[in-house]
Amino acid sequence: MISPTATLLISCPDQRGLVAKIANFIYANGGNIIHADQHTDFAAGLFLTRIEWQLDGFNLPRDLIAPAFNAIAQPLQAKWELHFSDTVRRIAIWVSRQDHCLFDLIWRQRAKEFAAEIPVIISNHPDLKVVAEQFDIDYHHIPIIKENKQEQEAKQLELLHQYKIDLVVLAKYMQIISGEFISKFPQIINIHHSFLPAFVGANPYHKAFERGVKIIGATSHYVTDHLDAGPIIEQDVVRVSHRDEVEDLIRKGKDLERVVLARAVRLHLQNRVLVYGNKTVVFE
Amino acid sequence: MISPTATLLISCPDQRGLVAKIANFIYANGGNIIHADQHTDFAAGLFLTRIEWQLDGFNLPRDLIAPAFNAIAQPLQAKWELHFSDTVRRIAIWVSRQDHCLFDLIWRQRAKEFAAEIPVIISNHPDLKVVAEQFDIDYHHIPIIKENKQEQEAKQLELLHQYKIDLVVLAKYMQIISGEFISKFPQIINIHHSFLPAFVGANPYHKAFERGVKIIGATSHYVTDHLDAGPIIEQDVVRVSHRDEVEDLIRKGKDLERVVLARAVRLHLQNRVLVYGNKTVVFE
Amino acid sequence: MISPTATLLISCPDQRGLVAKIANFIYANGGNIIHADQHTDFAAGLFLTRIEWQLDGFNLPRDLIAPAFNAIAQPLQAKWELHFSDTVRRIAIWVSRQDHCLFDLIWRQRAKEFAAEIPVIISNHPDLKVVAEQFDIDYHHIPIIKENKQEQEAKQLELLHQYKIDLVVLAKYMQIISGEFISKFPQIINIHHSFLPAFVGANPYHKAFERGVKIIGATSHYVTDHLDAGPIIEQDVVRVSHRDEVEDLIRKGKDLERVVLARAVRLHLQNRVLVYGNKTVVFE
Amino acid sequence: MISPTATLLISCPDQRGLVAKIANFIYANGGNIIHADQHTDFAAGLFLTRIEWQLDGFNLPRDLIAPAFNAIAQPLQAKWELHFSDTVRRIAIWVSRQDHCLFDLIWRQRAKEFAAEIPVIISNHPDLKVVAEQFDIDYHHIPIIKENKQEQEAKQLELLHQYKIDLVVLAKYMQIISGEFISKFPQIINIHHSFLPAFVGANPYHKAFERGVKIIGATSHYVTDHLDAGPIIEQDVVRVSHRDEVEDLIRKGKDLERVVLARAVRLHLQNRVLVYGNKTVVFE
Repeated sequence: MISPTATLLISCPDQRGLVAKIANFIYANGGNIIHADQHTDFAAGLFLTRIEWQLDGFNLPRDLIAPAFNAIAQPLQAKWELHFSDTVRRIAIWVSRQDHCLFDLIWRQRAKEFAAEIPVIISNHPDLKVVAEQFDIDYHHIPIIKENKQEQEAKQLELLHQYKIDLVVLAKYMQIISGEFISKFPQIINIHHSFLPAFVGANPYHKAFERGVKIIGATSHYVTDHLDAGPIIEQDVVRVSHRDEVEDLIRKGKDLERVVLARAVRLHLQNRVLVYGNKTVVFE
Repeated sequence: MISPTATLLISCPDQRGLVAKIANFIYANGGNIIHADQHTDFAAGLFLTRIEWQLDGFNLPRDLIAPAFNAIAQPLQAKWELHFSDTVRRIAIWVSRQDHCLFDLIWRQRAKEFAAEIPVIISNHPDLKVVAEQFDIDYHHIPIIKENKQEQEAKQLELLHQYKIDLVVLAKYMQIISGEFISKFPQIINIHHSFLPAFVGANPYHKAFERGVKIIGATSHYVTDHLDAGPIIEQDVVRVSHRDEVEDLIRKGKDLERVVLARAVRLHLQNRVLVYGNKTVVFE
Repeated sequence: MISPTATLLISCPDQRGLVAKIANFIYANGGNIIHADQHTDFAAGLFLTRIEWQLDGFNLPRDLIAPAFNAIAQPLQAKWELHFSDTVRRIAIWVSRQDHCLFDLIWRQRAKEFAAEIPVIISNHPDLKVVAEQFDIDYHHIPIIKENKQEQEAKQLELLHQYKIDLVVLAKYMQIISGEFISKFPQIINIHHSFLPAFVGANPYHKAFERGVKIIGATSHYVTDHLDAGPIIEQDVVRVSHRDEVEDLIRKGKDLERVVLARAVRLHLQNRVLVYGNKTVVFE
Repeated sequence: MISPTATLLISCPDQRGLVAKIANFIYANGGNIIHADQHTDFAAGLFLTRIEWQLDGFNLPRDLIAPAFNAIAQPLQAKWELHFSDTVRRIAIWVSRQDHCLFDLIWRQRAKEFAAEIPVIISNHPDLKVVAEQFDIDYHHIPIIKENKQEQEAKQLELLHQYKIDLVVLAKYMQIISGEFISKFPQIINIHHSFLPAFVGANPYHKAFERGVKIIGATSHYVTDHLDAGPIIEQDVVRVSHRDEVEDLIRKGKDLERVVLARAVRLHLQNRVLVYGNKTVVFE
């Protein structure tokens, strides 16, 4: 329906005329804006915006858009990203033993909910190789113990380069990623099975059961080197009661995890998430 | 914290350059935009936007903004409204016998959730006069029967003019407003105690009970001369079960009605609702 | 963890001593009750209960439980069902072209969320044969047009008998089942992609988009010969906005449909749903 | 509609025949059970039940029910409470400066959502005296500083006895109650303005804003001498976004706090909450 689009995600110190300057840049080159949204963080004095326009009829060729916009962005001290909607991102899904998020992500990719390819699954266990085979996706089993973590992470990194991966999705990957790894490959989305910041770390459903909460949640966030403390993209919750045993929380939680992770991945792939500080602006 | 602002709500046929033209108008006059959001209805070929900027430092005096913008709007065939954030709107609350929405709206107005005054309450029953007195608000009892509807509506209309009312809020006013009245005073927000379009008309909780639904809802909408069919501003729901009798649905529904109506009134007062066709765009 | 259990679902005219009589029957035979819940519909004068007890240590052999309880039930004019938790029910999934509910149900069955087998998929289209093969499930393509409906339904019925099916799950099967079929095989659960009773019939997402609702829903219900009007088992909703096109409603709706249908099927399989009149009591 | 009822809340070590024994006690005395629900905590080996029956036609006079039931309860090592539905409980509402929960509780009491009286409001500030006067409720201003806490708590305790208070509701009372006070008057329900256990202690909305969560919550719990760690009765949540400033979280949170606290108080007053360990069973 809609022709390919370009999207700019921009953050810069707030000042007058920003909307006009950016809109003029697109209009002057014949672009038709189909989405423009902005947010001002008054406390931080920061202007954040997302602007998307159709490439049909846009006078600048694709490879000149970035340098042309840079001339505008530099005097504004802006940080910015440029994306094209027809770029197909490449995702590596990392799993351990649970298959619900994996199945769900694959199903959504096949159903065209994600404009992305999933060429590889990486796991510290062999269990889900069968799923990979079922959907004809490469599977790499890279077991990790304390002693070999550094070298195994090197192997993982190599695979990401080899498969030209743009985004790692931790779909219930039950290992902590080292700070060093993250510094080399920062585009990682995780699903944590609690309503963060409650129940950081291991066994959140057991902890939720112990505490007797009446609602449980799931949180999808970018991974940083602080455990479960990265910028939150999406959260959701479901009601529980005294009738729910730990295994019921786990079962109900799986439905949450699937949908929360999927929403976060989709928002990221549509370039709707702008990270600043330890927070996100989600331009829906 | 924020100085007074001006807000434009604009709808016009979609074309290139709209964002730039509107942003330039504000920037050229020294305005600092603090909120700008837009929506394109591709099927209708319609561009809809809300733009809000600080009046501090804006070079055009208030009374010249409208004529100046009109020069831009006319060639675009735009419909538009201009609002100032420090205009205090005047609300008439219409009630019948139930007091929950009335209490809630008054409490919110006192708590400064609404930038509005509530100078008058109008009712077809005398029951809630005591509440009006408690909060020192004028109360007019205008009983309505089929035979006197036309003349009583004339009285209501006169009161609206006398009190300089900008907005009528039907806070569980259990009477149908005539099409003639609406044509003369169209700014009316209603709360309907169902998840529209389910259970239009009288006794929605009884109908919901009969049907055995597992969730009930409430809907706030602008009033048109089609019963319960006007543009929807806000809806919300709550879970019910077989244990809930009709009176439980009514009780749970009251909590919904209060919050759904209050959100709709606040969105309207903040000029965040743009009606087109029989729908709304809500710029949150 | 828990040994096999027996469950009684009972409805009868309300009177004193019902809880005692039923509990005594189980206690007298050495049963350990692990779940007992009841509901009284005062308007209908009806007592409805679910009682579940462990078979370990229960003195009556399985085949004598029904006749023994019947002696108690008859003077109470009770309708009742007896189920054993280790009976594996056999489900036929009926689909048309959409695969999301199908995938989800299969995944849950493999993940042991359902104590059931899925030996067969029946469809009026050939499209999802590939899914059936992927999971090694029989697939029968039975195309239906007005002219052959009666004979094709006869084939469907034959298949249900041949596969010893206990429950038909309409997982987005876009055909109306005839009243005659339902009278011969009444155990049918459907998922309707709206918040019933809003948007009965075809294209509910298109209708929801037209109406401009702010929330959409999905409803799982037993099928009766009144279209989309059978007893509701489960409903859920998700928020939408003006930004959502019809295809977004469809996409968001799929996530609802999956989870609402799965919850309904699970509740049914756990014998937690008691139908009376056109309503359900759901003993959670 | 329904005659006065008696309700037993019972917890005891699990064993066979408990439902039968308790149901028989009521049936043998001619009682008509209108609500019976139970829960087994298998890990704790604990049976917990709520049973409610009509007093009309019950053969035991009220003052003999407790001793009669005690004869059954003792051999079962049961802890139990007996309540009558026509006992009007007396609530003291404690507030600081915020009025939203106070207004809401008073409105609900007047609307007969609570079978209770509110004879007194106690506050560490004078601000809300005007509300107390508006609704003709006694108001006691008991300012608290570190130095006078002990003696002021003694005054508070004296007031509770003087007004024959059954339940203290902390409706945004921004002071920590001492362990000594709680040991003398343990029936205290609090509303905490976060989704516990996230954001324990002061300023949860500021912390939630800092963390960038996408959902905020409120929690109502019984007060223990561990801050914000008592048994949870009810929780609910609302979605927020990057557009919400701290004051928006506070505003949205108020709507949550009102309804969560009200539900918890109502559940308590209807004897639907059974505390064991640091958890609750809520028999809805």
